[in-house]
Amino acid sequence: MTALAQTDATALDDADPLAGIRDLFVLRDGLIYLDGNSLGPAPKSAFAEIEQAMREEWGHDLITSWNKAGWFMLTDTLGDKVAGLIGAESGEVVVCDTTSINIYKALQAALSLRPGRKVIVAEGGSFPTDLYIAQGVQAFAPDTKLRLEGRDGGTLEELIGDDTAVVLVNQVDYRSGRLRDMAAVTARAHASGALVVWDLCHSAGIMPVALNASKADLAVGCTYKYLNGGPGAPAFIFCAKRHQGEIRQPLSGWWGHRVPFAFDPGFDADPGIRKFLCGTQPILSLRALKAGLELFETVDLDAVRAKSMQLTDLFIRLIVERCGGHGIELASPRDAAMRGSQVALAHPDGYAIMQALAARDVIGDFRAPDIMRFGFAPLYIRFLDVWNAVEILRDVLESGVWRDAQFAQRAATVT
Amino acid sequence: MTALAQTDATALDDADPLAGIRDLFVLRDGLIYLDGNSLGPAPKSAFAEIEQAMREEWGHDLITSWNKAGWFMLTDTLGDKVAGLIGAESGEVVVCDTTSINIYKALQAALSLRPGRKVIVAEGGSFPTDLYIAQGVQAFAPDTKLRLEGRDGGTLEELIGDDTAVVLVNQVDYRSGRLRDMAAVTARAHASGALVVWDLCHSAGIMPVALNASKADLAVGCTYKYLNGGPGAPAFIFCAKRHQGEIRQPLSGWWGHRVPFAFDPGFDADPGIRKFLCGTQPILSLRALKAGLELFETVDLDAVRAKSMQLTDLFIRLIVERCGGHGIELASPRDAAMRGSQVALAHPDGYAIMQALAARDVIGDFRAPDIMRFGFAPLYIRFLDVWNAVEILRDVLESGVWRDAQFAQRAATVT
Repeated sequence: MTALAQTDATALDDADPLAGIRDLFVLRDGLIYLDGNSLGPAPKSAFAEIEQAMREEWGHDLITSWNKAGWFMLTDTLGDKVAGLIGAESGEVVVCDTTSINIYKALQAALSLRPGRKVIVAEGGSFPTDLYIAQGVQAFAPDTKLRLEGRDGGTLEELIGDDTAVVLVNQVDYRSGRLRDMAAVTARAHASGALVVWDLCHSAGIMPVALNASKADLAVGCTYKYLNGGPGAPAFIFCAKRHQGEIRQPLSGWWGHRVPFAFDPGFDADPGIRKFLCGTQPILSLRALKAGLELFETVDLDAVRAKSMQLTDLFIRLIVERCGGHGIELASPRDAAMRGSQVALAHPDGYAIMQALAARDVIGDFRAPDIMRFGFAPLYIRFLDVWNAVEILRDVLESGVWRDAQFAQRAATVT
Repeated sequence: MTALAQTDATALDDADPLAGIRDLFVLRDGLIYLDGNSLGPAPKSAFAEIEQAMREEWGHDLITSWNKAGWFMLTDTLGDKVAGLIGAESGEVVVCDTTSINIYKALQAALSLRPGRKVIVAEGGSFPTDLYIAQGVQAFAPDTKLRLEGRDGGTLEELIGDDTAVVLVNQVDYRSGRLRDMAAVTARAHASGALVVWDLCHSAGIMPVALNASKADLAVGCTYKYLNGGPGAPAFIFCAKRHQGEIRQPLSGWWGHRVPFAFDPGFDADPGIRKFLCGTQPILSLRALKAGLELFETVDLDAVRAKSMQLTDLFIRLIVERCGGHGIELASPRDAAMRGSQVALAHPDGYAIMQALAARDVIGDFRAPDIMRFGFAPLYIRFLDVWNAVEILRDVLESGVWRDAQFAQRAATVT
């Protein structure tokens, strides 16, 4: 196989059906932003959304905007937009609260549907907040048991038994990018009578997600990564229609009431997805998210997935061809069909290398102990960006500049 | 006593030490906005905050803003600003999530400190979400009991016994504006070994709140009413330092971890107030709130309370003097020392009357079955606004225009 050249990358850009979408984002010159799996960039249209929400709606119309501007139903109108990206129907998704809180609702809701079962099965290498929330459920219901893949023996599938109420699992692993088979895991859980809560934080927006086709029960996800909703934009929660009647969750605030403005003293849950709402939602942050979600309305997710696989394949191949001999190891699946839109490279000095890259305006992130994580968001990353990122990484490695003391100091960053 | 004249109102404005603050808000000409107890108006400085957060921080600096722009610590830096308004110390308040969710945390946390006790005492006339959340706690821990003032006999104080884990009580009633004695209720609860969760939604920002001087345990409140944080701005939660070591709450997400970025699989709670955090917070909405809170930095809360009492006294006196004979009854305490900054008037056709007022740009709100609710936020309401509001109400009542069919149709509004 002939080694790739820069012209191969530009040829891929020339043929890219998604190429025009990049112009809809704020991306400063020179930046190669491979951290959209942590915080997506600002859609240019978010400025107009926020300006309208601030000036006309809050500033001028004030309280009347809850109805007039649709503030009160943003949980649902944005939820429907998310539903279209994850294989759900209208009325199966609301946007609200945070991923962590939605995991809590989903776990408690699943436990409420399986009252005789006390085991939660999860991944030992799950994103930590998933485990922390499961531990929080357990701490206040001590007969609940937590069984973890990688700690308690066997694969996730092998840990599911007749005592399992719910399986909490990430579709794409936050570090390695490993992709789970949603239909297979769900079928395995259902065969044991268990439910599944899918965490879509690292899959929503970079591939077609097939919740209903996979017979999924519950799902959660964040909107500030590949959905480009802005820093800390509210999360989403999905509950399949077949469960909505019976299911209940303990964060039963007034927004989840059947008639919130009746001000009844007794809680009477909404019969549909709104029973997963709790309190008043942050409208400005929701409006930025609206802009992010609207960008997807002209986008074919099959094309997104195809480009995602091309981008990550190109990156891996270029790393192999051009960055050998420096102790870097691939920590993601080699087969594009088995991974999300990120590539993890392991190196003992990964932190310093990522800092040196950042100094050259190539932004990825680092996950302890040794993972350099690069996200490739197909809506705005060009194949030429991949080429250039690898060239800069090669230069960083060959020059040894990452050994400079300025890159050694660790600081906290947010995923 | 001589009847008041318009010049009495303008004389009060001339002497008002807070008069200059109104110019810091967006308030369109002609509007008399007596609904700041539902949604405060936009501080003009919020526009610059949002512009900076959108353009420089999200748009240009992207992921680095979590540290560089202080995004990650806004929960604490804004919490400290709230602390200064409610008689708490730095490190006792964080801004996060919603009031409803924070009530859930606070109730569960209080129950965790009183493991042998199973009773939650609350007000039968509490803001509904407080009751709904208590019912949610109970639904998932069926040995918990809910005892309600007004339903289960006796006053709130009389319902507190040796079986009581926690009392959930509003400092200011959302309908009547009735003010509770924080020190007395807290002392009564402590005498029985119970804890108190104070809901400050209708008191924070309109009077000095003395949490620590009252030996309060826990408190929650919203920021979009008198704190002018914007629609759905995140809420706050207070926990007294003396409880922070032992207390725990089940929404144990990664932001509440001692070292969030260690990505440990095991939850290890922050030893301080950050253990009440859960997931990633909506930064744009927090930044608008920052502007709202900064407006209070030059404000003396004693002066705010004094003006608040004057405003509501003036309103009540003018209603009595100028709106008699139309069946309106005062549904708030007559003594200003016994009420917050709102006045409730009862009328069987209150909904239509409020709609007719809104058509004349006098904005208050309605609470079923018959409460017309008027909030008087001392930072931007003028005594002349009070005079004019009453004159318009008088005209609406005398003309009978509220009987017009256009005002009869009910629509949902958000408190």
